[in-house]
Formats: sequence, structure tokens, C-alpha cells
Amino acid sequence: MSYSDMRIARLRERLAAEGLGALYVRNLANLCWLTAFDGVFDGEAAHAMLVTGSQAAPGAFLHTDSRYASAMKAAARGSGIQVSASGTSHAEWLASLVRDGAAGTAAIGVEDDITLAEYRRLVEALGSQAHPVQERARLVLGLRAAKDADEVRRLKAAQAITDAAFSHITGFIAPGMTEREVQIELEDFMVRHGAEGLSFPSIVATGANGASPHAVAGAARLEAGQVLVLDFGARAQGYCSDMTRTVGIGEPDARIRQAYEAVRQANEEVEAVLKPGMTGAEAQECAETVLAAAGFAGAMVHSLGHGVGIEVHEEPLLSKKNTEPLLEGSVVTVEPGVYFEQDFGIRLEDFGIVTRDGFEVFTQSTHDMVII
Amino acid sequence: MSYSDMRIARLRERLAAEGLGALYVRNLANLCWLTAFDGVFDGEAAHAMLVTGSQAAPGAFLHTDSRYASAMKAAARGSGIQVSASGTSHAEWLASLVRDGAAGTAAIGVEDDITLAEYRRLVEALGSQAHPVQERARLVLGLRAAKDADEVRRLKAAQAITDAAFSHITGFIAPGMTEREVQIELEDFMVRHGAEGLSFPSIVATGANGASPHAVAGAARLEAGQVLVLDFGARAQGYCSDMTRTVGIGEPDARIRQAYEAVRQANEEVEAVLKPGMTGAEAQECAETVLAAAGFAGAMVHSLGHGVGIEVHEEPLLSKKNTEPLLEGSVVTVEPGVYFEQDFGIRLEDFGIVTRDGFEVFTQSTHDMVII
Repeated sequence: MSYSDMRIARLRERLAAEGLGALYVRNLANLCWLTAFDGVFDGEAAHAMLVTGSQAAPGAFLHTDSRYASAMKAAARGSGIQVSASGTSHAEWLASLVRDGAAGTAAIGVEDDITLAEYRRLVEALGSQAHPVQERARLVLGLRAAKDADEVRRLKAAQAITDAAFSHITGFIAPGMTEREVQIELEDFMVRHGAEGLSFPSIVATGANGASPHAVAGAARLEAGQVLVLDFGARAQGYCSDMTRTVGIGEPDARIRQAYEAVRQANEEVEAVLKPGMTGAEAQECAETVLAAAGFAGAMVHSLGHGVGIEVHEEPLLSKKNTEPLLEGSVVTVEPGVYFEQDFGIRLEDFGIVTRDGFEVFTQSTHDMVII
Repeated sequence: MSYSDMRIARLRERLAAEGLGALYVRNLANLCWLTAFDGVFDGEAAHAMLVTGSQAAPGAFLHTDSRYASAMKAAARGSGIQVSASGTSHAEWLASLVRDGAAGTAAIGVEDDITLAEYRRLVEALGSQAHPVQERARLVLGLRAAKDADEVRRLKAAQAITDAAFSHITGFIAPGMTEREVQIELEDFMVRHGAEGLSFPSIVATGANGASPHAVAGAARLEAGQVLVLDFGARAQGYCSDMTRTVGIGEPDARIRQAYEAVRQANEEVEAVLKPGMTGAEAQECAETVLAAAGFAGAMVHSLGHGVGIEVHEEPLLSKKNTEPLLEGSVVTVEPGVYFEQDFGIRLEDFGIVTRDGFEVFTQSTHDMVII
């Protein structure tokens, strides 16, 4: 059974539980995950899929346009996915499938991350058949939270590039460089060493800029005594990595060292206790307790972590809002940080997988503060 | 009057014509355009705006979260835009504004490119006030089609980087390199020479791969006798550029030369006749007529061109489907091409602006086929 078959089978279990005859899928990451097609999707959200409850082939249908037709048909060979390419709208294509009975008579689910415009088109196209449409939130996204072996292999490959980039950039950085110069070198290294692209625009934030968790790398120059926050990731084999290290431009003062050690302790304490059944809220509380004990209560202005997979922000969240128990196979970041406005910021981020009885860290780079 | 004020004033004219008291805006490119904030938006679609029909300040409201609060408040100083940052949802923020009378009593427009989930949240939050919500398609996008002087300056800056990158890459390319190696060098040059990023992942497609208009750069190696399609653009000062050149890896054969000359003639004929009042469909027909006369009827499998601005694909389209007259200030690509499956492809793309009585090309690179 292929990974695609296994993922579609998991979706069918959910369809049955939800009383849906089929699910209409438009989200590009969901399509990548369900099909497990390699190197066929190029970032354009030009495709649609209908996964039906039927295990008899073809029980899943993919609609694309002529530009992608041959590559997708080749990728789908031997699978239970039937690819068709046409210039008609997805709505007309869906209505035609439904008319032909592909979805049975039960309701068709649509994910509520489609645009309002597309939803109106779907309802209009299906309307004459009076076929019930039901909205669902984060249905495939929820399934994607637990990673399979193929995904873990890809996630580790993405992280290996990211660790190598960190090693490279710490040898490259020198006082007087701009944040943007460091960012360009960091990103160029990743794409020259196997990355298809970036997980997100890299954060390279020195001194007071590091106090902003989402700083944009700019013209600020690295100065001795500052700490530099590097938050970056590679996309490889369709999957993202995400890591943060805070490095010293020369030896930092005692106050910065103290903050760094607290963040490190929070990171390592969480990584030691994460396991299935713990909630995201409990993980966040664990980190905050460590930080508060070190005198940094309230200094972490963001959530502790998030899922990572085909997208760099996925489920589950490690945050106060997530009171669901973590599942085995969840891949999450652990990224405690402390921030002092107009002064400095510290963040230390790994990512890894919740295993049967603990947490396996993918990130291999040291937790010691690297001094340039 | 600032560019932001002028753009918001143009939107207010549309609101009056549409009978709307205000418009709720979530699309990131629309927010960039309406605010003209520089370097504040970082790609996260975390913000919302309500532009009301009222010219009395504050007549426009921007809602963001704490991460962006200080930068946005600084950028908005002296404008008619009131920035607020909170952890509440956009829907609750909007409902509160409406409750306070900011939108008057007329209907609130929402653009139909918001997600279905957000639409449901908005209607629910506003519901208790029974405030009418009306859906609108491409309202701000339509206004963005005609560029102002500030935008033209930025678009030319983006294209200058792109022309320089073409000059660089033609000196870099050699037979035996992979498409991906060329792509990495091309993109690294752009970001090292002033680009904030790329307009889109560059197409580098050699030989038969060039027959696919949306090929993904891969492991194929450049061989003598092939032609190589390079389609790429830089993002600079918030705006995109877009150009395509087809270069020869050594002297191509007569058949390729003939196709190239036909494409060049189609490009130059369109650029000579484009002006306000002409429709996108007429422009496409012009190109197809030239190609057909040269024996290449039906070989252009895509539209002739598209608008370019904050996004690389904007309005107006130069395609059969667009029967609206082009307006002065429209910035469009002109990109005729011919494609021969499992053989080769040729495309020649400039971009420029529809002026009062013609078309000004931004692209400075030669139309002669560059031979490596």
C-alpha cells in the first residue's frame, strides 16, 4: 500500500465518521499530502481533488489544466487517483462527477479554507442537482498532524540542510556585516545544498531587532556585544524544516548570558518531557515555568511551538490554546524565547517528532551559544 | 496628497458608486497598495483594514497584532489610517467598529477572495447588529490595474535588476550545467543586487523542457544545439518584474531560428500597437495573426500577457477572455511563445506600461537571440 493510499484511507475513515460521501480538496498542501506526487506541484493552486468514500478504483479524482496534465497522469499511474485535465472550472468538473454518481448520494464536504468566491461557484454548479454541501474546518490538516515514515525521512533531510547552513553561516558572519548580507548568504547556501526553496524568509535580527520575534532582515550592521537571532529553514523533498539559534557577536554580557541559559533550560526541559498525551498548553506552561523561575516571567511573547510538515506552520500548536493531547507522530518546534524591547532577544528552536514514549529531536546543532 | 490618500480616494469613489458604506480588506497585496507602507508587511496575511466612505479622519482603520503594532503605527503617522493592535479576531474588531458607527448605516462590502471560514466569522460577529454584508469581486484589484507614478518607479527598479541578471546569467551559462544550477545563480544574483525576493520561482527550461510553459528547473543539462527558456523576475520596493528570453546553447538550427523570428515579430508588433482602448482580446489576436502568418498557428498555448504590480499576476489580462478596453496606466507583459512537445519552446517577454497614446517597454534587454 502506497503512502498516498494510506493517507486517502485515513481520510475515508474520517469521511465515514462525518457522514460525508466525499470531500472536495483545494488546499495545495493537502493535495501534495494526499497524492504524494513528487515534483509535480509547483506552487500554483490550480488543482482540485474529490476523494470519495468508495474504495473501488477510481475512488479519488484530480482535476488540473493542460499545463500539468502529462506530469500528473504519469505520477498517478498505478494509484487509485484518476487525473483529468480540462479548461472547465473546478465547479463544473465537480458537478459533472457528482452527476455521474461518483460521490454517491451522501453530502459532499468542502473545506472552509476555500475562497468565498469558489464556494459560491460550487454551490451554484451543484445547485441544480440539489446535492447537499457541508462545510468542514481543518479536516485534512488534522490528519496531516501525525506524520508517517516517508514524511519523517523528508523532514530529516530538510533539517540536515538547515544544520549544515548554520555551521556554514557561523563561519561566515563577521562584525560590520548587515543582517541582509547574512540572510542572502544563508539562503544561498541552503539552495546550493539541496533545498528546493526556503520554509520562510529567514529572520536575521541583531541587537534590538532581535526583540521583535518577526523582524525583517535589513541594513542594520552586526556589532560586537550584540546577540544575533537566526531563524530559518529549508524546504526539501516537499517538506519544511525550522530552527533558531542565537549567536554572540563577541562575548555577550552577563545579563544576556543569563537570559540565554534560561531559554536553553526551557527548551531542554520541554524536549525532555514531551510525549503523547501531553497537551500543547501543558508544554507551553512547562517552558513558562522554567523561564519564570529564572526571573523571566512574561518575557516569552509568543507560543512555544507549532507543527511542521509540508507547510512550516501546521498542527498541532504548542500554545495555551491547545488543550488537545499530542499524538504520536506529531512533528513540532520547541522554540522558547525572551524579548526585551529596544534591547535584545533570545530564541532557541529545535524541531522533532513525538514518539511512542518521548520526543526525538531532528535538529543536530549545538545548544551552546556560538560566539563569532 | 500622499499616494495612499490618492488610492483610498479612488476606492471611496467606487464605494459610493457601489452603494457601500465601507469595504473590509484582507488581501495582503490590497493592503500594501492602499496603505503604501514600506517594508512593514512581511508576507503574513495577519492584517485587516476597513476603508469607509468618510473622508473625515480617521476614515480608514487597520487591525493587526502586537508583532506589527509599532512598525505599523509609525508608518501610519500623518495618514488618515488609524492602526490598532489587539489579540481579538478581525471579525470582533470589525463588529466593534461597526457598533461604534464607523461604517455608517450603509452595507459593508467584503471581497470574495476571503476564505469561507472568515466570511462565516464576519457574518456571525456582525449578525447581532443585523448589519448588511455584501460580497464584491476584485474591487480593489480592479483599481490596482492603473498604476501611479510611485508604482511605475518601483516597477522600473525591479526590471533594472532583472535586466542586469539576464546580462550576468548569459555570461555564466555553459553547456553541461543543469537547469537548477543556472536557476540558483540567476536568483542569487538578483537578491545580491537589490531584489527583496523573486516574483516567482524562475523557469529555466532547456531543450524539450522548454516546450512546457511552466517547466520546473531540474537536473536536465544544457546541450549544444538546444534553446534555453529563461523566465524570471525580481521583487524590489514591493513590486514585481517579469521577463523571458530564449537563448541558444550554440547556434540553433534553421527551424528554431524561424520560430524565434516569428515570436520576436509577434512581440514587437503587439508592442507597437498597444494603446488605451485596445482590448486584451485584440492584443492576443494581433500576436496570433503574426504567428499564423509565419506558419505557427495554434502554437501559442497560453495567453499573451497579464498585468504586473505588487503581484506578478494582476489585471488586466491580454487574453481572448478580456474584452474590456485597456486603460492608460496598465502595466502588462507581452509574452508570445511557440511550443513543440518533446522538441523545444520559444518565448520572448517584455513588460511595460500603456501610456496615453502607446506602450512604453520597461525591459531593456535585447530582442536578438543571445548565443552562448
